[in-house]
Amino acid sequence: MTKTNVIKGNAVIGQSGGPTAVINESLVGVIESISRFAAVAKLLGALHGVRGIKEEKLIPLRRLGARQLKAVAATPGAALGSSRDKPDEAYCEEILKVFKKHDVRYFFYIGGNDSADTARIVNEMADAADYELRVFHIPKTIDNDLRVTDHCPGYGSAARFVASAFMGDDRDVASLPGIKINVVMGRNAGWLTAAAGLGRQDESDGPHLIYVPEITFSLKRFVDDVGRIYSKLGHCQVAVSEGIADESGQPVAVALAEKLGHRVQRDSHGHAQLSGSGVLGDFLADYIKSELGASRYQKLRVRADTFGYLQRSFAGYASPVDQREARMVGRKAVDYAMAGNMDGSVAITRAKGKAYRAGYKLARLQDVARLIKYMPRSYMNKAGNHITEGFRKYALPLTGGLPTIGKLF
Amino acid sequence: MTKTNVIKGNAVIGQSGGPTAVINESLVGVIESISRFAAVAKLLGALHGVRGIKEEKLIPLRRLGARQLKAVAATPGAALGSSRDKPDEAYCEEILKVFKKHDVRYFFYIGGNDSADTARIVNEMADAADYELRVFHIPKTIDNDLRVTDHCPGYGSAARFVASAFMGDDRDVASLPGIKINVVMGRNAGWLTAAAGLGRQDESDGPHLIYVPEITFSLKRFVDDVGRIYSKLGHCQVAVSEGIADESGQPVAVALAEKLGHRVQRDSHGHAQLSGSGVLGDFLADYIKSELGASRYQKLRVRADTFGYLQRSFAGYASPVDQREARMVGRKAVDYAMAGNMDGSVAITRAKGKAYRAGYKLARLQDVARLIKYMPRSYMNKAGNHITEGFRKYALPLTGGLPTIGKLF
Repeated sequence: MTKTNVIKGNAVIGQSGGPTAVINESLVGVIESISRFAAVAKLLGALHGVRGIKEEKLIPLRRLGARQLKAVAATPGAALGSSRDKPDEAYCEEILKVFKKHDVRYFFYIGGNDSADTARIVNEMADAADYELRVFHIPKTIDNDLRVTDHCPGYGSAARFVASAFMGDDRDVASLPGIKINVVMGRNAGWLTAAAGLGRQDESDGPHLIYVPEITFSLKRFVDDVGRIYSKLGHCQVAVSEGIADESGQPVAVALAEKLGHRVQRDSHGHAQLSGSGVLGDFLADYIKSELGASRYQKLRVRADTFGYLQRSFAGYASPVDQREARMVGRKAVDYAMAGNMDGSVAITRAKGKAYRAGYKLARLQDVARLIKYMPRSYMNKAGNHITEGFRKYALPLTGGLPTIGKLF
Repeated sequence: MTKTNVIKGNAVIGQSGGPTAVINESLVGVIESISRFAAVAKLLGALHGVRGIKEEKLIPLRRLGARQLKAVAATPGAALGSSRDKPDEAYCEEILKVFKKHDVRYFFYIGGNDSADTARIVNEMADAADYELRVFHIPKTIDNDLRVTDHCPGYGSAARFVASAFMGDDRDVASLPGIKINVVMGRNAGWLTAAAGLGRQDESDGPHLIYVPEITFSLKRFVDDVGRIYSKLGHCQVAVSEGIADESGQPVAVALAEKLGHRVQRDSHGHAQLSGSGVLGDFLADYIKSELGASRYQKLRVRADTFGYLQRSFAGYASPVDQREARMVGRKAVDYAMAGNMDGSVAITRAKGKAYRAGYKLARLQDVARLIKYMPRSYMNKAGNHITEGFRKYALPLTGGLPTIGKLF
């Protein structure tokens, strides 16, 4: 439908899916920017995403003080609450009804590819109903698996956390030598697990092995790899994605949970729960212990940690680059909304050249909705068990810099 | 034995037990300070603690550059390598033999209460052999369970990590409501688990429940507590120590591991391995799900994270107060060693008054060796499921300050 340049009316903003350490930067970016436009009388925050819209749980956001906004921006988790609801047609009709009732002409939805799809459906319904509505998807996900955008707000901070965790843990493993397996979030794509290797200075540093979901996981190759590193260095640190899958494509974690008689929880999008359980790490540790400990190394020390929700929620250690960009995608969404005849998903671009520099553009909702961006094969080495320099160049700037490690031997 | 004021000879330093984020600050404190004393010709670093002494794996430390020292100090893990060896008499004889061979007159040992005991034995042997040796134990442990000292270097950084993790995770749990159980390190004492509550601003903030090893754990009370909070707030965040024990005193984690047929690993001190496994958290989550999920809440979301080794090794997030004090206990050990007729364990004191201020003194080795300092009962509330203001006042300054949290509802 055709749209005039600025529509008078109200705006709604919501947050969806797994939160990140900087998801509220985007929220605050929208709040700050929209305050400059008189055409938008009210900015309403939907509590717990689409559910808050449907149930009309909407709170006013325009009059918040600078101090509160600053604190909210720096706080992990979704300040408005989040939701895993996957709206169907009927659900979206309810949303549109509420929008009409409250004269909502702008809808900002901060989320991943499922949220982009919700935004797309609502947008198409508004079009079909000839209701003038400008819909903007604002990207966030620690998984970094959205299409079009160079990278996703939320990823840089999670990558910073994971890389720093591996750096310190590697020194711990070198102190009391053994085999250490760390399980990293990432259902389908290996972006975050790959970030485990960003702090590595030389071959003796961990992680010595990195396994991502994009490359079929083989227990035999895993044992061989670990055994080879351990016999060479006397210790071995391994990064494993929670989403590693066998030849049939089934996640190893799900196969294990079912084998152990755990009920595998699935969300309304049909995704099996992989996080919030240590089963994959514990299994891999036990397996290594039985394979290598029995045959070759008697007093083998094997430990597993599952990093869990800290990766997306840890307070006080966000990437400054990520914070800035998350704020910017919120601001940009408002700029686009006020500029005229547009809907879309805000995307980050990267300027060519040696120094890292981000730009912004608008992608079509249908180019982002539901789709997954996997890691290019070129970001993993030939053996499929570590990252390449290409990945390092891509991801390191997003962390905002990593700690310096000092060694004595 | 009588000792003259300054003995000419060499010095050995070693690190022992589970490393911390600031254990190398103490190492660097000794390196820096000892360089001022010409009487000490060589400072030798023992690789992997007492084992490095026995096997004469000793590296020179006096000539390191300021830049390297700075990087080492800020790096988690034991830069000299650590050890879990528990030396018996014969082992200590070997140590003394090496000391004599290398004309070692000063022995600095950075570690916990087991290391203080090793220091004590070696010291007594030297006395008995009429060999002039000054032995200093330099405290470190994230467990904060050493006697005499007000608190232990390493604890403040671990407490900062745990408190920040709970603060961010609480906002994550509020975003996607459910029950979240986080398992925190601490074999015997609840100091670190109690730190989970340091960032809490009001009753609605997590953690809503805190369980420490000092107070007998009851599954029934646990379920009642969680159910009560969940029905009131719609979500509940719980801190559980890995060391929680039932009425018989057996750790719940060990009982579970044995039930599941896992071989429980024990170190040379006889301590069962509690960390590096998600079994306790997973069990508690499953138990809550089956108790509350079946009877009262159909779609109950329950997750568990086991914070694991990140608590002691995370890079780039140490407490500045802890860093400073860890450096100081290293420096003080050298001061005492050069001041004269002394052996002992360096202890931190706290000045009375409103503002936090640390001082230092020397404790006797036998007053620290092997003994455990439990949390006073007054640091936990009457119900035994949360901390008191008294604990907060004690522990908060040690974190060096925590992030600010902003909320919208």
